[in-house]
Amino acid sequence: MTLSMPEVPIHFSINARETLYKVIFNRRDVRGEFINKPVDEDVLARLLVAAHHAPSVGFMQPWNFLLIQDDDVRKSVHGLFVKANEEAVEKFEGEKQTLYQSLKLEGLLTAPLHLCITCDRDRAGPVVLGRTHMHDMDLYSTVCAVQNLWLAARAENIGVGWVSIFHETELKKLLKIPQDIHIIAYLTVGHVKTFHTQPDLEKKGWQKRLTLNDLVMHEEWGVHKNNDLSKLIDAELEKLNPQS
Amino acid sequence: MTLSMPEVPIHFSINARETLYKVIFNRRDVRGEFINKPVDEDVLARLLVAAHHAPSVGFMQPWNFLLIQDDDVRKSVHGLFVKANEEAVEKFEGEKQTLYQSLKLEGLLTAPLHLCITCDRDRAGPVVLGRTHMHDMDLYSTVCAVQNLWLAARAENIGVGWVSIFHETELKKLLKIPQDIHIIAYLTVGHVKTFHTQPDLEKKGWQKRLTLNDLVMHEEWGVHKNNDLSKLIDAELEKLNPQS
Repeated sequence: MTLSMPEVPIHFSINARETLYKVIFNRRDVRGEFINKPVDEDVLARLLVAAHHAPSVGFMQPWNFLLIQDDDVRKSVHGLFVKANEEAVEKFEGEKQTLYQSLKLEGLLTAPLHLCITCDRDRAGPVVLGRTHMHDMDLYSTVCAVQNLWLAARAENIGVGWVSIFHETELKKLLKIPQDIHIIAYLTVGHVKTFHTQPDLEKKGWQKRLTLNDLVMHEEWGVHKNNDLSKLIDAELEKLNPQS
Repeated sequence: MTLSMPEVPIHFSINARETLYKVIFNRRDVRGEFINKPVDEDVLARLLVAAHHAPSVGFMQPWNFLLIQDDDVRKSVHGLFVKANEEAVEKFEGEKQTLYQSLKLEGLLTAPLHLCITCDRDRAGPVVLGRTHMHDMDLYSTVCAVQNLWLAARAENIGVGWVSIFHETELKKLLKIPQDIHIIAYLTVGHVKTFHTQPDLEKKGWQKRLTLNDLVMHEEWGVHKNNDLSKLIDAELEKLNPQS
């Protein structure tokens, strides 16, 4: 493969653009579909390099990547999920609780690889260019690394699931992560039986996809427009879901 | 173009994978390179659809997209930047301050389009699947939408710059954004003269790119390994920067 940085900036073709959109639209949050097959290390290396090329505030690159492959550690992490999920289920009532209990929310035992992505807020000292007024920019930079990795994984036909039902303090203790380091994402990574064509929570009726035009505003909050752009947005969505 | 959702899951080819990596590696935070040429509305529609297909915790899709094209509003936003940046510059000292002052940190007046991406934390009610223990997951979902849009823009050969030197309260007041809505990203969007091959802050000597292997750990915090994976990571980075 040729990943070399070009001397002149790349102009992407319509084909390249279509490929990128296909990756974006076919990325899924994988829970129940992992299979017991290790991720090749060259794939893993490329995923990490992709994450490391995310944007970061003040170019501080505040992220770390903690890989967990040991069976016992993965089982312990699963134990933390089970405990937290017993608390989470109590927060829902009636039918919603029944539906919640029927959902597969993690693939911690089946995915052969866990990846904990963290943010070190002190990486570049106390004052960071671009973080002086919006203090959470470094956390957001780390999320950009997660999304880069997630999309790269999809293009490698590798599944990723983001698991967030944990007490952060317990997870940190288990993985010996210092108190001042923030856990941004705990990911399960692995080959999959299949990628669903729809998000699980949409398919199971937990939540519908919102109408994009309801979320788009112009010039100031609350101003919606029925204009050429809104028609073009609907046309793009129609291409994605011709039946709807 | 064919963006239709497939009936069977897409298996991406090596070519598709290489395209995705090229987009990731050639995405830049654009400040000084915007040109005065409007973004076509079909492009803008595709960018917003890409953002809307980001992952979100509990499928809550907490984002809104506020488009700003009016000259007066863009000038007012620039005024807020100038004021905040006068405060920011004072936080740096000596040579670092001089270097800071020489940097171009925004393209608010030249970019024909601003895009404010926000997070409505109450979108799905007080209890959200996956947010019961990690409360900032909805903010992170919104960042995933930003990164989707940023990569889509690069594949459309459109530049994006993320400006974060504002008082959030002032920006909200100007754009009439309610107090309980969080501003996640304020983006400038437009055609560019060129895309640099390196991040500005790297090129100008503000901060070096960190060594990825220093950031990768195994099984628990602080455990680094010199193994096949670390060699493969170095080999991938070497392909990106053959001179280094």
